[in-house]
Amino acid sequence: MRLTRYFLPVLKETPSEAQIVSHRLMLRAGLIKQASAGIYSWLPLGYKVLKRIETIVHEEQIRAGHIPMLMPTLQSADLWRESGRYDDYGQEMLRITDRHGRDMLYGPTNEELITDIFRTHVSSYKDLPLTLYHIQWKFRDEVRPRFGVMRGREFYMKDGYNFDLTKEDALHAYNRHLVSYLRSYERMGLQAIPMRADGGPIGGDYTHEFLVLAETGESEVFYDSAITDQSFGDRAVDYDSVPECQAVLEEFTSRYARTDETHDEATFNEQVPEERRRVARGIEVGQIFYFGTKYSEAMGATVVTPDGSRVPVHMGSHGIGVSRLLGAIIEASHDDRGIIWPEGVTPFHCGIVNLKQGDEAADAACESLYAALTAKGLEPLYDDRSERAGAKFATMDLIGLPWRITVGPRGLAKGVVELTSRRTGESEDMSPEVAIDRIAQIYA
Amino acid sequence: MRLTRYFLPVLKETPSEAQIVSHRLMLRAGLIKQASAGIYSWLPLGYKVLKRIETIVHEEQIRAGHIPMLMPTLQSADLWRESGRYDDYGQEMLRITDRHGRDMLYGPTNEELITDIFRTHVSSYKDLPLTLYHIQWKFRDEVRPRFGVMRGREFYMKDGYNFDLTKEDALHAYNRHLVSYLRSYERMGLQAIPMRADGGPIGGDYTHEFLVLAETGESEVFYDSAITDQSFGDRAVDYDSVPECQAVLEEFTSRYARTDETHDEATFNEQVPEERRRVARGIEVGQIFYFGTKYSEAMGATVVTPDGSRVPVHMGSHGIGVSRLLGAIIEASHDDRGIIWPEGVTPFHCGIVNLKQGDEAADAACESLYAALTAKGLEPLYDDRSERAGAKFATMDLIGLPWRITVGPRGLAKGVVELTSRRTGESEDMSPEVAIDRIAQIYA
Repeated sequence: MRLTRYFLPVLKETPSEAQIVSHRLMLRAGLIKQASAGIYSWLPLGYKVLKRIETIVHEEQIRAGHIPMLMPTLQSADLWRESGRYDDYGQEMLRITDRHGRDMLYGPTNEELITDIFRTHVSSYKDLPLTLYHIQWKFRDEVRPRFGVMRGREFYMKDGYNFDLTKEDALHAYNRHLVSYLRSYERMGLQAIPMRADGGPIGGDYTHEFLVLAETGESEVFYDSAITDQSFGDRAVDYDSVPECQAVLEEFTSRYARTDETHDEATFNEQVPEERRRVARGIEVGQIFYFGTKYSEAMGATVVTPDGSRVPVHMGSHGIGVSRLLGAIIEASHDDRGIIWPEGVTPFHCGIVNLKQGDEAADAACESLYAALTAKGLEPLYDDRSERAGAKFATMDLIGLPWRITVGPRGLAKGVVELTSRRTGESEDMSPEVAIDRIAQIYA
Repeated sequence: MRLTRYFLPVLKETPSEAQIVSHRLMLRAGLIKQASAGIYSWLPLGYKVLKRIETIVHEEQIRAGHIPMLMPTLQSADLWRESGRYDDYGQEMLRITDRHGRDMLYGPTNEELITDIFRTHVSSYKDLPLTLYHIQWKFRDEVRPRFGVMRGREFYMKDGYNFDLTKEDALHAYNRHLVSYLRSYERMGLQAIPMRADGGPIGGDYTHEFLVLAETGESEVFYDSAITDQSFGDRAVDYDSVPECQAVLEEFTSRYARTDETHDEATFNEQVPEERRRVARGIEVGQIFYFGTKYSEAMGATVVTPDGSRVPVHMGSHGIGVSRLLGAIIEASHDDRGIIWPEGVTPFHCGIVNLKQGDEAADAACESLYAALTAKGLEPLYDDRSERAGAKFATMDLIGLPWRITVGPRGLAKGVVELTSRRTGESEDMSPEVAIDRIAQIYA
């Protein structure tokens, strides 16, 4: 993309309404614009990151054998009356009346709707196991929306639901989700730690929250520092293998790591040596639940078993906060000059800065870099504005592309361009061909 | 995908509530399930088609130089009061009150919101031309939703907005949209005819609707039959070229083609020889508008011109009904046995039917076909159920994959499998390797 043909409205001033750095940077870098309280438009650059995160979530869910579909944003109140949650859910549920006076709501989650789909179409154990998921906009009418997309009202979320014949099968589905979530977050350049949590309005005793450590996190967390040395890495896991998935769960959840809701000081002190005890803050980016037959019993979602009897299915639900992840990633990865996108979610693979727009050699070299990178399936953002170098660097630093190629007449006279890492600030001169290969290798 | 691991709830009975064939087939083939009146869940197979259509729309918009972003579903009523449309829009607008008593609405379209983004961030002619678009869920509270996704309440739509300095520039944007729409529909296997239409609540005299001819269409249309011989084909059009885009507009809109709203019997009779006059019905799948400064004046969206004065920008808006396209495609492409997906939007590239599940040679041949097709980047749907051949064929015919490979012990003894076209019903025996190459060529 050429910047002169793009829509990238960066702000010079720091918006006064933004209290945390990710919110400030998302506004300043032209990722979002508030449409109304807690509701945002995703400007082109923010939309690109949102899509990259969404794609990672899809790919990892499909890899785990989960099936994508899509449920609507508006739901009938009737289903929620059946489950008993219509009255339980407080004012955070946005209640709507349509022109015929029917009670509707903007879905904050989808247990009722997916259970209704299941009970309509599935009646035999032979159709199990089954895990369906979707990524859809949801609404929670926060009394005081704040922190930008981190605590907005309209938010984008992946929610998946497993249906299994037995508790054991459902716990395997739970483990599968844990594995796929670890993979997903790592691909986004995040360390998200599974912590024992509380069931909340979804219900269920068996639940883990995934938290990204950050000073601005909404939850206080208590953990064994050894846990932050763990990483999932590039290991192959067979999602059909019960022991393999179980082993990952044990590896990543055996150490003490809890939110304040489940924290127990005595256990903490007993299990964790003092020098490894940490109290910090975390941002919740996902949660997995096993809640057994809570919804299937209330809503009559049963299957015929091999012996001919009828039993309610065991279920769980599993969520990733797709839109809030932009905020979490920025909280975890930025500096004074702006965002530093991890390669996995960057909106463009690299920037090209032309130091002297209008200079024949510089223009030609930039065009040729642009064409070569594009031909390799990469998306560069070429700053082809007639601006001074300082302004171009400031924009690139603010929007946080991980790699920048700087092209100027002086370097070209020596046959080189400069490749700079946004994270380390280190620069290196090299021929344009080597720079292209380097970028291609990084994203291979 | 293996059918035993998929969620494909096909129905044997014809649902009584469905009045038109596309609605019946979408329910029977397990593409959608009604969640409440006019609101649908997209089951896995339907979701895949929806995504294929969405991808085509994105690719063709980006090719035309239009920039993707995303606006929220809920909007503040204030912006609509500014444009004067809050009161104009009748009961079809779903009005919502949040917990603080603020007036909101579920966006039926986005002129106000996009104009607000524009006026906040753009102030110079140097930032023009600019076309932004998004694909987002919208809501229209139809008094009597019907025909499935064709006239639902919650619907998925691409809407794009151009901002230009002059009327001439805006008309070029209009033409660019017309070209990109022709390309999009043809890639979906549809002939959608641009017809002179009425501005309706969006406003504007300069507008074309794209209609797919079908008996169940909601609009009566009048056209010169010569128009149905035209096709866009694989021509290269330079979207930056004013004359090239203008020439396409003239080629595709010079013949008489109008909806009943703009039809004029005298002109029809005068311009079209009797033997080419056609009266038929059509399904609207898109519409483009140039409406000048209607919103920019009302909302103060102005830019500074080269001579330093300030003028309101010229705008247009351009929509494609993404979710309703599934219905339109099925109306245009089906037979007694089910759907016939055009290759461009098919949920799976081909089906593999194993005539004798459990037979060692047949199972192995199917697995090997599955692996080879997948390795070529294709997605086959392998019916690996232990069902009789008739049931497998009926399912494949119903869900409408354009190509089927049938594998059985008898054929394998002769070294062949059978490749069948869903559209023509013609079958041909060939080696598995040739079948794989044939499928790969079709989708190349």
